[in-house]
Amino acid sequence: MSISAAVASDGASLLASPVVAPSLRAPLLARYQSVRAHTEAFCVPLATEDYVVQSMADVSPTKWHLAHTTWFWETFVLTPYLDGYTFYDKRFPFLFNSYYVQAGERHCRAQRGYLSRPTVAEVKRYRAHVDSHMAQLLDGLDEEVHRALADTVEIGLHHEQQHQELMVTDLKHVFAVNPLRPAYQARPHRGAPDPGPLRFVPFVEGLHTIGFATPDDATVGQRFHFDNEGPQHRVFLEPYALGDRLVTNGDFLAFMNDGGYERAELWLSMGFAHAQEHSWTEPFYWERRDRTWMHYTMHGFRAVDPHEPVCHLSYYEADAYARWAGARLPTEFEWEAAARSMPPTGQFVDHGRLHPAAIEPIGGDGAATSSNGLRQLYGTVWEWTSSSYGPYPGYRPVEGALGEYNGKFMCNQYVLRGGSCATSPSHIRATYRNFFPPEATWQFTGLRLAKSL
Amino acid sequence: MSISAAVASDGASLLASPVVAPSLRAPLLARYQSVRAHTEAFCVPLATEDYVVQSMADVSPTKWHLAHTTWFWETFVLTPYLDGYTFYDKRFPFLFNSYYVQAGERHCRAQRGYLSRPTVAEVKRYRAHVDSHMAQLLDGLDEEVHRALADTVEIGLHHEQQHQELMVTDLKHVFAVNPLRPAYQARPHRGAPDPGPLRFVPFVEGLHTIGFATPDDATVGQRFHFDNEGPQHRVFLEPYALGDRLVTNGDFLAFMNDGGYERAELWLSMGFAHAQEHSWTEPFYWERRDRTWMHYTMHGFRAVDPHEPVCHLSYYEADAYARWAGARLPTEFEWEAAARSMPPTGQFVDHGRLHPAAIEPIGGDGAATSSNGLRQLYGTVWEWTSSSYGPYPGYRPVEGALGEYNGKFMCNQYVLRGGSCATSPSHIRATYRNFFPPEATWQFTGLRLAKSL
Amino acid sequence: MSISAAVASDGASLLASPVVAPSLRAPLLARYQSVRAHTEAFCVPLATEDYVVQSMADVSPTKWHLAHTTWFWETFVLTPYLDGYTFYDKRFPFLFNSYYVQAGERHCRAQRGYLSRPTVAEVKRYRAHVDSHMAQLLDGLDEEVHRALADTVEIGLHHEQQHQELMVTDLKHVFAVNPLRPAYQARPHRGAPDPGPLRFVPFVEGLHTIGFATPDDATVGQRFHFDNEGPQHRVFLEPYALGDRLVTNGDFLAFMNDGGYERAELWLSMGFAHAQEHSWTEPFYWERRDRTWMHYTMHGFRAVDPHEPVCHLSYYEADAYARWAGARLPTEFEWEAAARSMPPTGQFVDHGRLHPAAIEPIGGDGAATSSNGLRQLYGTVWEWTSSSYGPYPGYRPVEGALGEYNGKFMCNQYVLRGGSCATSPSHIRATYRNFFPPEATWQFTGLRLAKSL
Amino acid sequence: MSISAAVASDGASLLASPVVAPSLRAPLLARYQSVRAHTEAFCVPLATEDYVVQSMADVSPTKWHLAHTTWFWETFVLTPYLDGYTFYDKRFPFLFNSYYVQAGERHCRAQRGYLSRPTVAEVKRYRAHVDSHMAQLLDGLDEEVHRALADTVEIGLHHEQQHQELMVTDLKHVFAVNPLRPAYQARPHRGAPDPGPLRFVPFVEGLHTIGFATPDDATVGQRFHFDNEGPQHRVFLEPYALGDRLVTNGDFLAFMNDGGYERAELWLSMGFAHAQEHSWTEPFYWERRDRTWMHYTMHGFRAVDPHEPVCHLSYYEADAYARWAGARLPTEFEWEAAARSMPPTGQFVDHGRLHPAAIEPIGGDGAATSSNGLRQLYGTVWEWTSSSYGPYPGYRPVEGALGEYNGKFMCNQYVLRGGSCATSPSHIRATYRNFFPPEATWQFTGLRLAKSL
Repeated sequence: MSISAAVASDGASLLASPVVAPSLRAPLLARYQSVRAHTEAFCVPLATEDYVVQSMADVSPTKWHLAHTTWFWETFVLTPYLDGYTFYDKRFPFLFNSYYVQAGERHCRAQRGYLSRPTVAEVKRYRAHVDSHMAQLLDGLDEEVHRALADTVEIGLHHEQQHQELMVTDLKHVFAVNPLRPAYQARPHRGAPDPGPLRFVPFVEGLHTIGFATPDDATVGQRFHFDNEGPQHRVFLEPYALGDRLVTNGDFLAFMNDGGYERAELWLSMGFAHAQEHSWTEPFYWERRDRTWMHYTMHGFRAVDPHEPVCHLSYYEADAYARWAGARLPTEFEWEAAARSMPPTGQFVDHGRLHPAAIEPIGGDGAATSSNGLRQLYGTVWEWTSSSYGPYPGYRPVEGALGEYNGKFMCNQYVLRGGSCATSPSHIRATYRNFFPPEATWQFTGLRLAKSL
Repeated sequence: MSISAAVASDGASLLASPVVAPSLRAPLLARYQSVRAHTEAFCVPLATEDYVVQSMADVSPTKWHLAHTTWFWETFVLTPYLDGYTFYDKRFPFLFNSYYVQAGERHCRAQRGYLSRPTVAEVKRYRAHVDSHMAQLLDGLDEEVHRALADTVEIGLHHEQQHQELMVTDLKHVFAVNPLRPAYQARPHRGAPDPGPLRFVPFVEGLHTIGFATPDDATVGQRFHFDNEGPQHRVFLEPYALGDRLVTNGDFLAFMNDGGYERAELWLSMGFAHAQEHSWTEPFYWERRDRTWMHYTMHGFRAVDPHEPVCHLSYYEADAYARWAGARLPTEFEWEAAARSMPPTGQFVDHGRLHPAAIEPIGGDGAATSSNGLRQLYGTVWEWTSSSYGPYPGYRPVEGALGEYNGKFMCNQYVLRGGSCATSPSHIRATYRNFFPPEATWQFTGLRLAKSL
Repeated sequence: MSISAAVASDGASLLASPVVAPSLRAPLLARYQSVRAHTEAFCVPLATEDYVVQSMADVSPTKWHLAHTTWFWETFVLTPYLDGYTFYDKRFPFLFNSYYVQAGERHCRAQRGYLSRPTVAEVKRYRAHVDSHMAQLLDGLDEEVHRALADTVEIGLHHEQQHQELMVTDLKHVFAVNPLRPAYQARPHRGAPDPGPLRFVPFVEGLHTIGFATPDDATVGQRFHFDNEGPQHRVFLEPYALGDRLVTNGDFLAFMNDGGYERAELWLSMGFAHAQEHSWTEPFYWERRDRTWMHYTMHGFRAVDPHEPVCHLSYYEADAYARWAGARLPTEFEWEAAARSMPPTGQFVDHGRLHPAAIEPIGGDGAATSSNGLRQLYGTVWEWTSSSYGPYPGYRPVEGALGEYNGKFMCNQYVLRGGSCATSPSHIRATYRNFFPPEATWQFTGLRLAKSL
Repeated sequence: MSISAAVASDGASLLASPVVAPSLRAPLLARYQSVRAHTEAFCVPLATEDYVVQSMADVSPTKWHLAHTTWFWETFVLTPYLDGYTFYDKRFPFLFNSYYVQAGERHCRAQRGYLSRPTVAEVKRYRAHVDSHMAQLLDGLDEEVHRALADTVEIGLHHEQQHQELMVTDLKHVFAVNPLRPAYQARPHRGAPDPGPLRFVPFVEGLHTIGFATPDDATVGQRFHFDNEGPQHRVFLEPYALGDRLVTNGDFLAFMNDGGYERAELWLSMGFAHAQEHSWTEPFYWERRDRTWMHYTMHGFRAVDPHEPVCHLSYYEADAYARWAGARLPTEFEWEAAARSMPPTGQFVDHGRLHPAAIEPIGGDGAATSSNGLRQLYGTVWEWTSSSYGPYPGYRPVEGALGEYNGKFMCNQYVLRGGSCATSPSHIRATYRNFFPPEATWQFTGLRLAKSL
């Protein structure tokens, strides 16, 4: 679905001038320009000051995202592949390298908000400079000849899409900690429909194929996947069931009202300790005002809608909720086995609404229901799984600095699946593995229940 | 193998008066008394002051272990099952509960070393009091009638055995941080034989049964297992190979000499950050003196022997070593599938040597070699696996406070298999899952390499 | 000396349109407008992004200073004295109150850099709004009638002048931590003249009057002083001597080259521990490049000039240097007794150079030499004294929130005297007491030696 | 008053065999043996375990005090003055040096509780060894010939007396944090008499002599003072008044009941922040039980007596109380000027009661009232003054490692005067300056009010 479609359906758009997203079969340059344009379109409503702030160590300033994604193109594409290319500013790699040890020294992550310079205008000039050189490189590129280059460009596109999502969640944090609670884009909220009771969809035991394998006739865009999605291998699953929809705010309020945050027996030991230490008594961004639960959303500070999916949960809260509900979190393999046959459609960023939407009850429009009865599998919120993020059998990172993209983070993180309302639709697949530490709450993270049968 | 056997083979014993360990078919009371006696035998060489110290938050004073294991019997066996039993001292549960939230409030873990009282003598009186009541309860117990009680006693026995191992590793830490470096039991070290080159033993792909299931004719002792070892279920394994022996100090020195501790690309990101922050440049307890690597052992401060297994590695170091060696850590399922058919024999605490021993090269006595060619699978050192500690499909903790034993720790920890030189031989099984956070180094932890084929 | 004079003497100005500073006898409104204009003049060279950043907890963003000083007028002058005045934005007091507990709740100090909103433009509108209401209030004010108001306005003027100095030192920190090292106002540095050897000027023992007392014929401006400067009282001084000039970079380099930073016996215990913990091996902002000591200055990153006064020293370093030099720091009473008879002239902010300047050797222009032979007593750098900041006998803070201005900080801070190159000349007096904790280095802080005779 | 007298008056003694304390004119060896015997007499009621524990970083284990004081004699007396003396154990200096940088490397202070070895018995052998060598050195010593030695011995005696007091306060902390609350020496408490209302005693303005000067005919014992008590110099005091007695628990409860701990305006900013951060709502060691204020004392856990002096106050609490009471803390000079003419008698450790005692109301026995009407000036509790601990004019520490005794701590600490119920009577003088950081509470610290007239 194109971003322009979002304008039609929502009557409002994130973009001053809508950008048509090309298909995965389109030429690389067109796709490059589309992705880059989306990054900039997101910034249109911002004041200069909004680009600068880092409101916690995990958050990066918008300005940094704009520059870091640009540095990525400079470092991994222009420098090796465009003859005679030199860095726009030789001091920028130090400032805008994130964590690639093999790509050189870098600025301290926690101090990204200490940099008033380069200014936003300078960073935009930097982007334009790199864009013009990328156009020069990619224009008329013979893909078969330049397969290595094309693969790296593909990584760059997905890399920038990941940062687009982080730009949303990071800016949400910046705005939310500000007592003025500025909206990114004010928008009235109408009450959501009741999605109806949650049902469990059963799956039989069996040996499943997990992970990505490239189709024979795939284009560059179609064959792309991150190294952590492979190698493809077999996993045996005992019988299980998945909830047919996401857990809602209303569901979660029942847990809270049942003393959920105070009952140690419902929690992982580490989770309860963390919750106590940080005085967690409700989901992140929630706030009690005059007996009403309110929360900050990108579209304004407003009451929590019980019919919308619960969001900004840590792994700990998701796990505790599931235990309270007599269920558990799914493994990432159970999720993938169920999702494999389904097209990756759902509420993604192109819907133009940066907050998870409720679904119609079954028997309503039905559009979001899959053949196996699961709804909201893709988009809306990332779904925590109980799977610790680790390597698949035979996993081997790529050579060089890009090998640091995924593998070195395979410790003390948990896998999330399916994408969110801030994810680009062209970014997601059934095999896609996102990962965060169990205490992370500033992403659009929710949950789907599972059971062993 | 009985503890008295250790005396014969080593010419020295941990015990003033050797205790013959009864088999798993012996009456509960005999087994109870044997386990309790082993706890106390370990303390014979200690000065009163040695019982008091807590040298880091993870370490508990010996005195605390003596009392906590006793509290366990009071709380979970005597109180519910012995009519009219009252606590020896009503203030002790607060002091000696470890982490059982459902068993009441407890003293801060990090402050166990702040308690000079109760004195060691008082704690010993407490133990004697509980032992006499346990004898009263268990004497002539009809097991078939009291199956629930017998199962709880069995947990208590294994619980106390776990604390016996912690008493060793905790006291090792207490002695090692003391600049005087007192030996627990001084003993000269003769150079170990060279175990010869490491070979990989291949295993074919297939569906494996993982986890414990009770044999039909099992006695109480034989049917015992922790809840985290079940339910039994099926796991599919792609083809793999395991190293036929443990990694040695000599092997690890090659990694160190190749810059292993400085090369970020060999490490997990979190591991490298931890190693840098704590200035790790060698394994825990190692120390450079006049160009020689020395280390503290329970039998004295002495040179590192290149032929002994490397020990006191964190998960991070084990993982980095494996990557450097072009291999990886095994999963816990790969380990269990390989170990399943092997009897759990090896260097356990009854050998009377509280330091990992080298093996003879193949073709030597051969005693330690299994039918599939793997050596040192049980005992010597705990082997880190790449498996994050999580629940098996259908896992359900037991009801009540004892349900806190395992399940609530299933987060950000990694599974270790096989037992160590400080483990009781009657404590270990192929399905046994130990777990520690990835930065832990004060246990007897080493590694065996694995590969995907 | 007026700010316009700075233009003439330096050939460059901080100000786009020079502001003539009125004398202390001028009407309040004129003085109000002059002080406010100076605040804004300082901001002329800044990019919008420069207003937003908080580079450490002690630093406040420029935007915050602009708003906080404005809130001060709103809270303590307009609200009580201008009929019908209401707050520009009712949420601003929460954001821009610094530490006045009695003036209401306030935003966390360490998070001032988390606020992208209100924008700089909004803050400037806020300033203009308050300025127009202040003009309405002060225009034609009969001072004798409104003495209480006039006194509060006077505090506000001095308050804003203090923040003007903090704006300089805070922005210096923001720029200095940025690897790009932007200059506030680039300016070439010509080598400074050698000030010649330091001589000690002796003072005889005696009873001295310390602290401020209002002259009978003083105007509002002339009678102003902070509450911590009084009551006037008597102090007996044993014979002492003061260095006739400030300690220079060259002097301090001799200390460094003599191992000053490594020799515990030269330091206060707390100072040495702090220096070790923070790896201090040179003054703040200094950096070794290719065997040359460089430092960041507001006018660019350049070599340290040995003839300029040493600056950005902590109390600990100043104290250690003095001990190494066989001297000590003066008490604040020794300083005041020596300064009492001297006019407060020196290198203040109106000189237009935001870096401490060297003086000519004696026999040069002589202009800066006082009748008692002391030079650089006022301006250039704040001089650490050995006096802990405490109340004078009979000290009593004013009633209400303004009573929190000084008294509550009288603990673990040390008094500095004389003002610096970033201080307004109309702000300083012989009795003026500045104070900072002993580890503070981001102010323009240096030292003058003293001795007991 | 001798320690044996304490037995008579209290009917109980700290000492198994009472030691008669020799006068300051007695031979050094007799005084050495008396001081050493007092150290050991204090330990008689202890269990071995009580010697080992360090319950916070500020606290040292009793065993450490026993060994450190012994190391002091070895290092500063036996090694330089007794031919052929060698250290008892060459590893002990590393373990038992406290902070003398010039005396070599030392063990980390915060880890003194990590040492189970040397055992208590070993430390006692160490003491006996040093005592016998000291006897050999001092027996028949010609003081006039060995004046330097005699002065160092004198420091050693006072040093050991300081550690005797710390042994009391440190052990009190060890016992108090133990939920079992063991008493050092159980003793019933009978209600104390009401001391009656507090009156202010006025003092006229004038120039005063402050600090120690040696009388011409002084013996070694009489001429002793710490370097921080000199040089003697003149201080001018404005008119002031001092409270005629200490502030009591009852006085302090009135402050608490008036919201004292919640009212920021009564506190130093740093003090209020500290109190909030540590959730202070009552004095250290106090605890609310069933609507009664209880506290731990060395003689048992019991109700707070309103007529006893308030104790274990931080500087912050003392300062806030004084402000609430419309008064202030005295300066150390005001205290000394008032105390100079008074004999140093009061409730010291020889009274055998390790808790501050109430006084009789005026008109009662009167024994404790001085000629100027001040009571409890010496002993009972240390009195916080508002004076930051700094050097007197012309202060110069002694050469060598002993120069680290006092001077290097002259930063961010406040002076206390008068001694406490845990101080030896032969240890105190009118010029004696004790010092602690403003947050310290584990000493016997209270306050006397002052006012400017």
